[in-house]
Amino acid sequence: MSFQETLQHKINTKTKPLGSLGYLEKIAFKIGQIQQTTSPTLSKPAILVFAGDHGIVNSEPVSPFPQEVTTQMVFNFLNGGAAINVFCKQHKIHLKVIDAGVNYDFGTTPNLIHAKINKGTNDFSIAPAMSIEDCKKAINKGKEIVTKQFAEGTNIIGFGEMGIGNTSSASLLMSTYTQTDISNCVGKGTGLNNDAVRVKTAILKKTQNIHQNITDPLEVLATFGGYEIAMITGAILQAKELNITILVDGFIVTSALLAAHAMDASVTDNCIFSHCSDEQGHSKMLAFLKADVILNIGLRLGEGTGAALAYPLVQSAVFFLNEMASFESANVTNKLS
Amino acid sequence: MSFQETLQHKINTKTKPLGSLGYLEKIAFKIGQIQQTTSPTLSKPAILVFAGDHGIVNSEPVSPFPQEVTTQMVFNFLNGGAAINVFCKQHKIHLKVIDAGVNYDFGTTPNLIHAKINKGTNDFSIAPAMSIEDCKKAINKGKEIVTKQFAEGTNIIGFGEMGIGNTSSASLLMSTYTQTDISNCVGKGTGLNNDAVRVKTAILKKTQNIHQNITDPLEVLATFGGYEIAMITGAILQAKELNITILVDGFIVTSALLAAHAMDASVTDNCIFSHCSDEQGHSKMLAFLKADVILNIGLRLGEGTGAALAYPLVQSAVFFLNEMASFESANVTNKLS
Repeated sequence: MSFQETLQHKINTKTKPLGSLGYLEKIAFKIGQIQQTTSPTLSKPAILVFAGDHGIVNSEPVSPFPQEVTTQMVFNFLNGGAAINVFCKQHKIHLKVIDAGVNYDFGTTPNLIHAKINKGTNDFSIAPAMSIEDCKKAINKGKEIVTKQFAEGTNIIGFGEMGIGNTSSASLLMSTYTQTDISNCVGKGTGLNNDAVRVKTAILKKTQNIHQNITDPLEVLATFGGYEIAMITGAILQAKELNITILVDGFIVTSALLAAHAMDASVTDNCIFSHCSDEQGHSKMLAFLKADVILNIGLRLGEGTGAALAYPLVQSAVFFLNEMASFESANVTNKLS
Repeated sequence: MSFQETLQHKINTKTKPLGSLGYLEKIAFKIGQIQQTTSPTLSKPAILVFAGDHGIVNSEPVSPFPQEVTTQMVFNFLNGGAAINVFCKQHKIHLKVIDAGVNYDFGTTPNLIHAKINKGTNDFSIAPAMSIEDCKKAINKGKEIVTKQFAEGTNIIGFGEMGIGNTSSASLLMSTYTQTDISNCVGKGTGLNNDAVRVKTAILKKTQNIHQNITDPLEVLATFGGYEIAMITGAILQAKELNITILVDGFIVTSALLAAHAMDASVTDNCIFSHCSDEQGHSKMLAFLKADVILNIGLRLGEGTGAALAYPLVQSAVFFLNEMASFESANVTNKLS
């Protein structure tokens, strides 16, 4: 038997009807395949939350929240009060918070990973969000942070983000990488009404008209991205390089994955998709990546919360593969046919 | 503010966009409402797995597994090798196994709750599965077991089942309680092919013709049910009585819920639906009960595994309600509008 057949055989001979653990069986298979073992393990699960600000919010009404909320939420993360804190604590997931490009001087604030490239991006309705050089810096910083996390023993990782205005970035990245009309990439974000979504769509359409014929994956990311998104792109590329299992979160993180995927299509070999967000573009991103998801419960919070909430189900997949008895070991009669 | 408004206000003022935790917010609201507190707790979660045999399997090919698998799986539960063991261990859920009516003499087997009514039901293609009296006995035994579990401190409970042939019972119960044609209630069970599903449907249609004009909820349960199903019906009724939160599993457990619901429609006030099974009838049962689910990942294993797998998400709902900071407490600016 090939390794894949051996792995599938182990899944199939557990004491349960064939295929009856549904999508959990696919996850077990995928992690076994990533780790090239029929007894995979999950070690030191981590979620890295990258925060960055977006120049667009200073000139255009793309978010119902003011920019300072990015900074305030970073402090909320550091103080343990945000949703991602609660879910990481619940599942013993190591949580780290990174200043990728917040418009605030955190000084030596402890427990924050200081990786600021700039105090927010440029307003991309006027100029590219960042220079190619700064974009590369952000990617490399993301790679460096993942390498360090890997050295601490992590073999499964999720990424989260905070950045007022970053659904606009994600929509533009999606539109460009997946060749989808911007109107199908724009959603309510943190809570715009229908009129405001129309205004946001018009702003982003105008932005696209200013930056035409940009096709190089790195240039696309630099033009429309955010520092947190570029850093996650690097983090994803490095996680793949180190053969870490990647637990993909929602709309923003998947936009970073689209960038990584445009640079190296093999990254999805290591991806498990935690959920389908309520942000309308996300399901289309997932279709583009031919991705199935674990959860479909209308989440649209960001921060990596979808990844954290789906983690116990990934654990369940690994546990059933390692811990369940087989028909043979438990002396249970298998199907008659 | 009314209690409901106060509860919703607490959910709405957590540091997250309004509604962004999706279905978790509905669960938090529901548990708060059940417990009539804005700070609900989950205490000593338990899953009770009821096992019983079915007379129909002795005469008709309704399952690809032989009857002795029910007994073998009870031993597998007691030895910790089944899927439900793995997931309960993962989530620190107290697991108990009940012999409701298995066709085997377990003697004084330890760690098994001995509640056998009979060694399997009658073949309902010939006669009612059980007498009204035995059905009442099973219901009362289920109530008694839940009362005992409640006394041990449990305020959230799931039920599981094992019984070769019990999807046939569940299909007949569904057809009768929901007034749905039997062909829409029959599925592949533990793994029948399409031809075998047609044979199973014909057998159950014949069974319905033998038992016509039965409408009394108790008589329906006695005619088509199983001892494990009747015991779960009683268990559900008593859980509602004791105001325990009920985490509903898949097709078989939901058929028991349909019986309980026919006897007392208010039982669903305490129900959280863990998942939608891959067994085709389940989604229609859920539609009948106007129920939303947490997981939709193609499970069809039974044993209470869906309830166990969904439990961490119920926990997450309670934890975010209790542990997240509010906009005020974290000094985060709320929406501009």
